[in-house]
Amino acid sequence: MSPLRIALLGYGTVGSSVVHRLTRADAVRDLTLTRIFDRRADVKRRAHADLRGVAWTTRIEDALCSDADVIVETIGGLEPASGWIQDALRAGKSVVTANKQVIARDGECLLRLAARQGRQLRFEAAIGGAMPIVRAVADGLAGDRLTRIVAILNGTTNAVLSRMDATRCAIDDAIRDAQRRGYAEQDPCLDLDGDDARAKLAILCGLAFGLRVTPEEIAARSAASVTSADVEAARRDGATIRQLACASHDAADSTLTAWVAPVAVPRHSIFGRATGPQNAALITGAHAGEIGVSGAGAGGDATAVAVISDLLAIARDRAAIVPALILKPPKCIRGFGEIADFRIQISDCESRMSDSFLAEAV
Amino acid sequence: MSPLRIALLGYGTVGSSVVHRLTRADAVRDLTLTRIFDRRADVKRRAHADLRGVAWTTRIEDALCSDADVIVETIGGLEPASGWIQDALRAGKSVVTANKQVIARDGECLLRLAARQGRQLRFEAAIGGAMPIVRAVADGLAGDRLTRIVAILNGTTNAVLSRMDATRCAIDDAIRDAQRRGYAEQDPCLDLDGDDARAKLAILCGLAFGLRVTPEEIAARSAASVTSADVEAARRDGATIRQLACASHDAADSTLTAWVAPVAVPRHSIFGRATGPQNAALITGAHAGEIGVSGAGAGGDATAVAVISDLLAIARDRAAIVPALILKPPKCIRGFGEIADFRIQISDCESRMSDSFLAEAV
Repeated sequence: MSPLRIALLGYGTVGSSVVHRLTRADAVRDLTLTRIFDRRADVKRRAHADLRGVAWTTRIEDALCSDADVIVETIGGLEPASGWIQDALRAGKSVVTANKQVIARDGECLLRLAARQGRQLRFEAAIGGAMPIVRAVADGLAGDRLTRIVAILNGTTNAVLSRMDATRCAIDDAIRDAQRRGYAEQDPCLDLDGDDARAKLAILCGLAFGLRVTPEEIAARSAASVTSADVEAARRDGATIRQLACASHDAADSTLTAWVAPVAVPRHSIFGRATGPQNAALITGAHAGEIGVSGAGAGGDATAVAVISDLLAIARDRAAIVPALILKPPKCIRGFGEIADFRIQISDCESRMSDSFLAEAV
Repeated sequence: MSPLRIALLGYGTVGSSVVHRLTRADAVRDLTLTRIFDRRADVKRRAHADLRGVAWTTRIEDALCSDADVIVETIGGLEPASGWIQDALRAGKSVVTANKQVIARDGECLLRLAARQGRQLRFEAAIGGAMPIVRAVADGLAGDRLTRIVAILNGTTNAVLSRMDATRCAIDDAIRDAQRRGYAEQDPCLDLDGDDARAKLAILCGLAFGLRVTPEEIAARSAASVTSADVEAARRDGATIRQLACASHDAADSTLTAWVAPVAVPRHSIFGRATGPQNAALITGAHAGEIGVSGAGAGGDATAVAVISDLLAIARDRAAIVPALILKPPKCIRGFGEIADFRIQISDCESRMSDSFLAEAV
């Protein structure tokens, strides 16, 4: 079998980790990087003169019209990324993307286009870094009827909140620490406010419940206002604060309850134990009960593992079908309901959830 | 697309749960049960007169030569199950099995046969019940270089050991309790001695490291001799005793270290928190770090979720390739080394492992 030819869009944190994995001495078999598109390709190429056999370009057409079998998109943001993914599928390429915003908004259309084209669109890297939650929900637990997902989906916010708990510092200090470690952007608002987690949760609602949900329909409370006093109060209750994304589906009523908010969770629960940029999820099914997954939710190397796993799935079976999602909107989407602020939310969640968050008592 | 026609071999705990899922009012779309083979079909058929459109048989040929697209094997044990799986593949059927013994001994040959026949052999249900660890290791983390798996793989032993911890009872009382709840066989030796976990770990060594390992090559210490005094001593150290299966691979040396034994683990680790028949695993990759998975490791309904997920994967893409494993034997297989008994093993494991078992400190 000829190796899969890969063109990469975007040489940033994730993109450069993917390049590293594909070009070093212990490179992944059957995967060949042929082209890198980056707006600053001229500069970056000079810093990587050792990359032989790889053509750098600043013209997107060079990548989309190349002889690549697969386009790996790690640019991020809605446009031009979404249009380029569409162009790639139309040009007969399969696509692997780490782009949660594009999949949350356009995933349904793009998957349909991919199926029509007989190509694959894979996006394990869009949620949870190396934690294989897309496969767990869409494939491994496809045989269940899923009813709820509760998860830490934003590594940046988790690094900030767990730092506040570990060092009793103020949120600004924790943000600066996360920035120093490379876990947080200069402007961490999209992370702390919940926008990043809402996009990921919207995708999971499609995969788990077959529901068409936009990120904007998911209620959110910002974690930016969490104070060290809040963290201290949680600690006195044996808890710690985490940004949780929660979606539960009542199929009989076609009602979805979905929100992202800072919540006090038991210290020793799967969520309390997720520190730094880790992600974690509890997926509840009508037949299997609760399935937990956890792992590095951010960072170039971890996210590159998800990208390479998707590439290997395509290499293994280029004609495989990635099913187009058949989604319908829920009749009703609920957010926080009557709960007035996150402190009340915290205690309410904890009492409602603690029995399932903690392992069932024998 | 025509629905997938399914013939089931064995109407026991898992088999009857699969039948339940395929024939009730909210049956899974695209999956049609056509035939049930069971040695006691004559008796069982009378108890299930409501199963319309399903032919019962006591003759294996009726199932293997029927018009079924897929054979679901839930008989267990090496023979005749392995031979029947072979016959099914030769007859052009895909096969879904929950049989860890067959896959541990014959998986490599059977997967090769399936690939030659252009059919699929899937076995998510053979390890971890509903916990999708086969997909996590073989697919979701295929993009990493895995170096270690530490896991609770036997639900029965976990139910016994966690019961001893929760109620401070003797092991015989805990075994009787597990039998009452349906978690333990009349003879729980294969579970407590580690034979069940060794078969599952041998399969995982193939999937994760590409190594050909037989269950007999994996060192084992029985959990049958754990006393309530051992449990008490562990508790004083903030630990609890679990049967762990551990495999780590040094690729440079082609050395595999593999064992199954009762080990003291921190109470709040992913393993300490797994109670009752739960399973849990920490999978370490060179690039992604540690990925955790956990969930119901036993029980008909949970295991049926894994079977149905495999059936849906086949229904989605009947021509998909499940890669035949290309395995090689390790140069060297190590067991416990110089560690003389499980109590020493316990403390040694705990100190060596606790930093990674517990979430990384921020």
